[in-house]
Amino acid sequence: MPKAEPVGVIGAGTFGTAMANLLARNTDVLVYSRNPELTERLNRERFRFGVPLNARIRLVNDFAEVAERCQLILPIVPSNNFRDMMQSITEHLRPSHVLIHGTKGLDVTGLDERHIPTTGIDRKNVHTMTDVIRQESVVVRVGALTGPNLARELLDGQPSASVIASKFDEVIDRAKVVLKSRQLHVFGTHDLLGAELAGVLKNVIALGSGILKGVGLGKNIQAMLITRGLVEMVHFGQALGSDKRAFFGTAGIGDLIATATSKKSRNYMFGYRIGSGESLEEVMATSQELAEGVRTLMITRHLARSLRLRVPITEMLYQIVFEQYPVAEAMNYLITYPYDVDVDFL
Amino acid sequence: MPKAEPVGVIGAGTFGTAMANLLARNTDVLVYSRNPELTERLNRERFRFGVPLNARIRLVNDFAEVAERCQLILPIVPSNNFRDMMQSITEHLRPSHVLIHGTKGLDVTGLDERHIPTTGIDRKNVHTMTDVIRQESVVVRVGALTGPNLARELLDGQPSASVIASKFDEVIDRAKVVLKSRQLHVFGTHDLLGAELAGVLKNVIALGSGILKGVGLGKNIQAMLITRGLVEMVHFGQALGSDKRAFFGTAGIGDLIATATSKKSRNYMFGYRIGSGESLEEVMATSQELAEGVRTLMITRHLARSLRLRVPITEMLYQIVFEQYPVAEAMNYLITYPYDVDVDFL
Repeated sequence: MPKAEPVGVIGAGTFGTAMANLLARNTDVLVYSRNPELTERLNRERFRFGVPLNARIRLVNDFAEVAERCQLILPIVPSNNFRDMMQSITEHLRPSHVLIHGTKGLDVTGLDERHIPTTGIDRKNVHTMTDVIRQESVVVRVGALTGPNLARELLDGQPSASVIASKFDEVIDRAKVVLKSRQLHVFGTHDLLGAELAGVLKNVIALGSGILKGVGLGKNIQAMLITRGLVEMVHFGQALGSDKRAFFGTAGIGDLIATATSKKSRNYMFGYRIGSGESLEEVMATSQELAEGVRTLMITRHLARSLRLRVPITEMLYQIVFEQYPVAEAMNYLITYPYDVDVDFL
Repeated sequence: MPKAEPVGVIGAGTFGTAMANLLARNTDVLVYSRNPELTERLNRERFRFGVPLNARIRLVNDFAEVAERCQLILPIVPSNNFRDMMQSITEHLRPSHVLIHGTKGLDVTGLDERHIPTTGIDRKNVHTMTDVIRQESVVVRVGALTGPNLARELLDGQPSASVIASKFDEVIDRAKVVLKSRQLHVFGTHDLLGAELAGVLKNVIALGSGILKGVGLGKNIQAMLITRGLVEMVHFGQALGSDKRAFFGTAGIGDLIATATSKKSRNYMFGYRIGSGESLEEVMATSQELAEGVRTLMITRHLARSLRLRVPITEMLYQIVFEQYPVAEAMNYLITYPYDVDVDFL
């Protein structure tokens, strides 16, 4: 019997490692990292983020091997590095490859994170990760892995649900075969853009939820923030051309609730530290990776301006994080904001 | 200038007291309790649940005085006592009264909580609290107060949002005038049944969320439970004749998130204790009040049977709470449940 084909994972961060361990329940896994010392060390130590690597996982430093041996590959790297990563591997990719990314961020053409223009970010600058895959490679069969998937919990063996979004049934079906287990329920959806955007946009609200907790506020107002935040997510999604359906399922509300209420979420913790009184510079100086939500907040706020969207939570969060606006005043602004109608999006 | 009319509150429990203190920011308040010792003591001590009673609150033991002096009255008593309460005060109520209740439970004709029939609960047996008000009194202008309103947080001065649901603009407007403050944002909606049912049904999911926490599970699966639970809430709501819109707003998702993630929620804590290994009898023996969600779970499970609804979470929770079904097996059942489609309700 021929040995079954392994699945590739690009990136050995927390979520990449968590997915590798989940995949290894069903298949051999090749995890690609561009860092040769890391791959060598992990192959030797077989331990990462405090948990053992499944014996079916092998780290490789040569992407050509991954491209040669794996048809299904999951890129899981931060959004600010995604396009560079794609450019570095594209020569090895063929139309037969299937790429399902697990990155919850946006790509903006020409974005300089230190000097975002206050105008000039509009729809045509903003790309999802599947856009980037399509732009930078010959791969056609793309998909996104999303849903409430706090990496720390997955690493610790906690159960969860994921959503595989793709226009292609084949992509969804292949992903289900290798991902489904007693630890993971896998939903499929054809609403790729909706599922991607829901996963991206929820990080901003998670960040806001962390801020509320950081300043000592309770669950009632956190719930209001999440509920109204979901409305803003829907408005952004619609402005970016997506259906609203995904926002109300596992990839939307599900991911939002997990991320916006857990100290294991990087976005929530970023907000928590801001709410506790640390400055953006202080938090960034002591963070290994920038929380995706911070970058998304930059992008969506400017996008909201160019699209003239009414998104008071996004606006307040932007001012708190980037312009030192006092949280107490932002809270007062939001609680007295003249929301006329509660549910204006269905 | 004539003294402004006070607002009445029926019930001096945690939520009744919290609302009384919120109302007293704007108006005089008469809180009715049928317990003469309690009213006498509270008027003397001016302290309840660890917080001072606002000076504008007075406890009264005579409902006739409340009915005489207040046009707007908020009944806030447990659902299993609501009809009796209404019968005891109805002689004092007139068509000019406005009743806005704050009770998140259902009334079932002929329900004996110790011997619920496995069949025979159907739509015509099940009444909301506004149904009960209409059935038991001459009052026409009714409404419901709902939303993410953990009483403990409100007592402690934490900000929140409420929803006033009524068919009558006049009811919504009057409630807004006396409730709005820097602590409370007030939404209005005409979808009375939807808002009431969302507030009622979410308690079951909160209970389930507590069970997951009690057995040591994490946020990912809690988020999945809440998301899929919301789907069941929508299905129940539709089967009971309500629109789905309310379920996606402050009275639905908002209340659900607050209740299903807070140790200050009685329903969540009930589940938490069950999940930690206590039996129904043990929890009930040491609880002052039965969590509304337990009663609602009894009702909705039997209703689901008679309506042939596909509600696996409700069914599993019923079996865990009332039939000692092992939580681990229920979890496995749910994670491998053949949900085909994630968002099948929009």
